[in-house]
Amino acid sequence: MKDSQSPFIMGLNARALNHLQRAYPRLDTLGVTRTEFDEGSVWDFGVRSKGGIEAGILLGEVCLAGLGHIGILPPQTDSLPFPEICVGSDHPISACLLSQYAGWAIQPENYFAMGSGPMRAAYAGEKVFDELTPGQRDKGSEMVGVLETNQLPGEPVLQWIQGKVGNSKKIHLLVAPTKSIAGGVQIVARSLETALHKLHTLHYPLTTVLSGYGTAPFPTPAKGTLDAIGRTNDAILYGGRVFLWVHTEDELIAEIGPKIPSGASAMYGRPFAEILKEAGGDFYKVDPLLFSPAEVVFYNLASGRTFRFGQRNPLVLMRSFDLTGF
Amino acid sequence: MKDSQSPFIMGLNARALNHLQRAYPRLDTLGVTRTEFDEGSVWDFGVRSKGGIEAGILLGEVCLAGLGHIGILPPQTDSLPFPEICVGSDHPISACLLSQYAGWAIQPENYFAMGSGPMRAAYAGEKVFDELTPGQRDKGSEMVGVLETNQLPGEPVLQWIQGKVGNSKKIHLLVAPTKSIAGGVQIVARSLETALHKLHTLHYPLTTVLSGYGTAPFPTPAKGTLDAIGRTNDAILYGGRVFLWVHTEDELIAEIGPKIPSGASAMYGRPFAEILKEAGGDFYKVDPLLFSPAEVVFYNLASGRTFRFGQRNPLVLMRSFDLTGF
Amino acid sequence: MKDSQSPFIMGLNARALNHLQRAYPRLDTLGVTRTEFDEGSVWDFGVRSKGGIEAGILLGEVCLAGLGHIGILPPQTDSLPFPEICVGSDHPISACLLSQYAGWAIQPENYFAMGSGPMRAAYAGEKVFDELTPGQRDKGSEMVGVLETNQLPGEPVLQWIQGKVGNSKKIHLLVAPTKSIAGGVQIVARSLETALHKLHTLHYPLTTVLSGYGTAPFPTPAKGTLDAIGRTNDAILYGGRVFLWVHTEDELIAEIGPKIPSGASAMYGRPFAEILKEAGGDFYKVDPLLFSPAEVVFYNLASGRTFRFGQRNPLVLMRSFDLTGF
Repeated sequence: MKDSQSPFIMGLNARALNHLQRAYPRLDTLGVTRTEFDEGSVWDFGVRSKGGIEAGILLGEVCLAGLGHIGILPPQTDSLPFPEICVGSDHPISACLLSQYAGWAIQPENYFAMGSGPMRAAYAGEKVFDELTPGQRDKGSEMVGVLETNQLPGEPVLQWIQGKVGNSKKIHLLVAPTKSIAGGVQIVARSLETALHKLHTLHYPLTTVLSGYGTAPFPTPAKGTLDAIGRTNDAILYGGRVFLWVHTEDELIAEIGPKIPSGASAMYGRPFAEILKEAGGDFYKVDPLLFSPAEVVFYNLASGRTFRFGQRNPLVLMRSFDLTGF
Repeated sequence: MKDSQSPFIMGLNARALNHLQRAYPRLDTLGVTRTEFDEGSVWDFGVRSKGGIEAGILLGEVCLAGLGHIGILPPQTDSLPFPEICVGSDHPISACLLSQYAGWAIQPENYFAMGSGPMRAAYAGEKVFDELTPGQRDKGSEMVGVLETNQLPGEPVLQWIQGKVGNSKKIHLLVAPTKSIAGGVQIVARSLETALHKLHTLHYPLTTVLSGYGTAPFPTPAKGTLDAIGRTNDAILYGGRVFLWVHTEDELIAEIGPKIPSGASAMYGRPFAEILKEAGGDFYKVDPLLFSPAEVVFYNLASGRTFRFGQRNPLVLMRSFDLTGF
Repeated sequence: MKDSQSPFIMGLNARALNHLQRAYPRLDTLGVTRTEFDEGSVWDFGVRSKGGIEAGILLGEVCLAGLGHIGILPPQTDSLPFPEICVGSDHPISACLLSQYAGWAIQPENYFAMGSGPMRAAYAGEKVFDELTPGQRDKGSEMVGVLETNQLPGEPVLQWIQGKVGNSKKIHLLVAPTKSIAGGVQIVARSLETALHKLHTLHYPLTTVLSGYGTAPFPTPAKGTLDAIGRTNDAILYGGRVFLWVHTEDELIAEIGPKIPSGASAMYGRPFAEILKEAGGDFYKVDPLLFSPAEVVFYNLASGRTFRFGQRNPLVLMRSFDLTGF
């Protein structure tokens, strides 16, 4: 078996667009509204439109550039009454780090949203692209992006993105607020991505990751945006479980492994909203090592050995998800 | 996000028919037989045909007017060795109450079956339609219905339905006995519908329900029809778990909530077949408040709070499903 | 409901080919490579190609002749951190015994692989065909087979198979090593098949089996082939749970039942690799009654009764999967 996998950037936008187009006939059923512009289109998954769980699954799969699957399952334990959102990919680095990761701040005048999806690969302006696919950009005449925001973007946002990419590619933006149903689903579907991002931060060689699968509980969307950010982060930090099929040295896993789960951070142990408040709302003051699933399991095909690091923390989840009165 | 959702009646039959038609190429594999009549068609999912689990999933999804998904999962606990049937919808009121609910007694001379599916919306003769979509009827030239019965309907049944609807629409009837595999699957897939019906009975404002998901164990189909009715009801009453995304007042949930799960009924606690026998086999003497899942969880998007009412009752399930000797 | 189901041999290869062809547009995404020959084609699911979990699901479903579904789920318990591979079929005997069972030794000069998939039904040279579908062979101009091997077959292997079938049918071979990801998935997807094969060995009347569903944990692919064989067998023997909908006499189930799970074998209780080593590596010296899932549950539609035999053995799984240090 090919025991390594180079991330690829070419075709990510075309794949995402293809996946999105297959949903055209059922947009109405999905509760998604599409507005056409000269520059492309804006798809409302939950700002004014209702969206829903199926819309969130579509949103997440497009964000993975069509290179993964997302599903919903009943709660895994009786004590945590939240459905699980699971995600799998056989191209985890391309799908998650070059496409799904929310690494591009979209900030034209008077607008701000974190951008994710394959449009990032057409721009390739983030450090992660220099590191993983230096000198490359996805080609093709159209781009697809996902914005986590309460505010629908208009033409200035589309034009700002086009300007960054430096050509007149059509740009299709899929939009959902953090605290909408579809928005929540697509965020909780980032368990696998979060693990891979942490691995990258720890300089783990990503080409050795062959396949990945993850699951995390889908909390009640919180009322305020800060609480919503808190809960969806906690769903991963204290509830995420990620499974990785790799082909590498056992020593490497044994060495890096204990640093991978969120529990390795000194800030671990409290709901994320509390941590963020203490940091004055400044993400950059939060320990970057905190951003990781609660549990990460390695299946090493080179040795046949299994390595497990971290575990779920239901107590913090119950505080974060406001279940203390149960 | 649009924080309410009006139920809609238009197009339910067309959606169901569309979902059904996609299964045409694999009817043979599904173990389903189709008979054409001048008035429409009859689809045998388990009377003389074998049917099966996939057939039951199709039957259930058509009954939801194509507005939901049904799946099978392994047993959730070791002590209750029955697969789970899960169901989800982002249009739960239209899918479940205006289509899936078995509310229409089909009773031409010498025939009786409970009718469900979107043909109910073409007739709109039940009280629930006056309450939720007054003055409306689904239009279109064809109708789709589901009958739970051991007896395949012939032309008189098709004509009786056409007569009720008052025109010459083609009528397609999908038929499965309670105690067939497909019949059992589609009944156990009613966990979500049962919760919504109970909410409606309690005058909960249904437009606040945005999405729903449910699961219930699939018991061994019982030998006799009465026992089969008992077990499938118990699967919901004592084994059903339902999860609802709503946008409403916490006070309302807190007030109505405790009345929602089956445990709120004075008749709760014994297998349904016993309760029905004691009531002389008369459904109308059974407390209508008993018909509800064992557990209902609310995720309130208006407040970010989670509310949980009731819980599974494995002891009654083990008696009902005849597992006492285990 | 039709209460028995005769296995059928006709069309199995056409069904498998149809299922395979639907994957053509995404072979690249699946990590599968296809090589054309005059005699047919060879599909690499994990020898030199990467393959992956989705590739394994496709491989398993083609091996079932398109008559079943395979899926991946998160670990069922916290103590056994391996995803579950579940499989279901409403035509379990045709799908599993006439197609999926690895019963044909493909051994032209200098080559050996166990062959499975519907090409077995085109040859019909195994005893199980004489017993279940005497005198029959699947017709049609093409054949599909699955080989579990580290060595990609060339034209001599294709020609050897054509020679056995005795005509010039095109032969399409899907290939994956035991210790590849796709290979592992398709093996662990054999929980249902293993139960049915054991039932057949015990002379249980297979036409009474109407539907089946099974699940087993997917262990880390082992380093060596022997260990890989050991682990994938243990996944079934000590971790497989199978659920069967049947229509038969309770007495028959009660009599045969205790002999069905792997625990009925005198060799039960140790990892399979140890057992095989002790037998000098000779499969034929291993008790054939050992090959069965850990747990088998019968849902008898003739009586409404449920029968459960055997249970998972996590301790042996932890030894086999090398989790002792956890």
